[in-house]
Amino acid sequence: MCESNVFIKSEEKEVLFYKEAVKIIPVGEDEFVIEGLLGEPQKISGKIKEINLIGHKIVFEKK
Amino acid sequence: MCESNVFIKSEEKEVLFYKEAVKIIPVGEDEFVIEGLLGEPQKISGKIKEINLIGHKIVFEKK
Repeated sequence: MCESNVFIKSEEKEVLFYKEAVKIIPVGEDEFVIEGLLGEPQKISGKIKEINLIGHKIVFEKK
Repeated sequence: MCESNVFIKSEEKEVLFYKEAVKIIPVGEDEFVIEGLLGEPQKISGKIKEINLIGHKIVFEKK
């Protein structure tokens, strides 16, 4: 499967925010909802810094 | 593999912009570079409207 883990970067560290996301949809200025196959959707604030599909990794940076 | 096709949406139509992207990196305000496994990277202008990893589909919307 092609889920990606979503990380949030702050102070040069990348912290796992959401495991195995399947869908990311913008819901406002620098605000997104992340959906997974299981579990509740979660809102994240920040800018996308990297989408790495081979690495299964999406990185947001806090404003 | 987990490449996604990148579409650009304008006037309610989604047009294929880049086939089998593996990496998308912001390079400016609403500007991104798309990389694939093969072929040249390409710059795209617009806002991300949808990241659908299961559907292998990333949609941008023109400003």
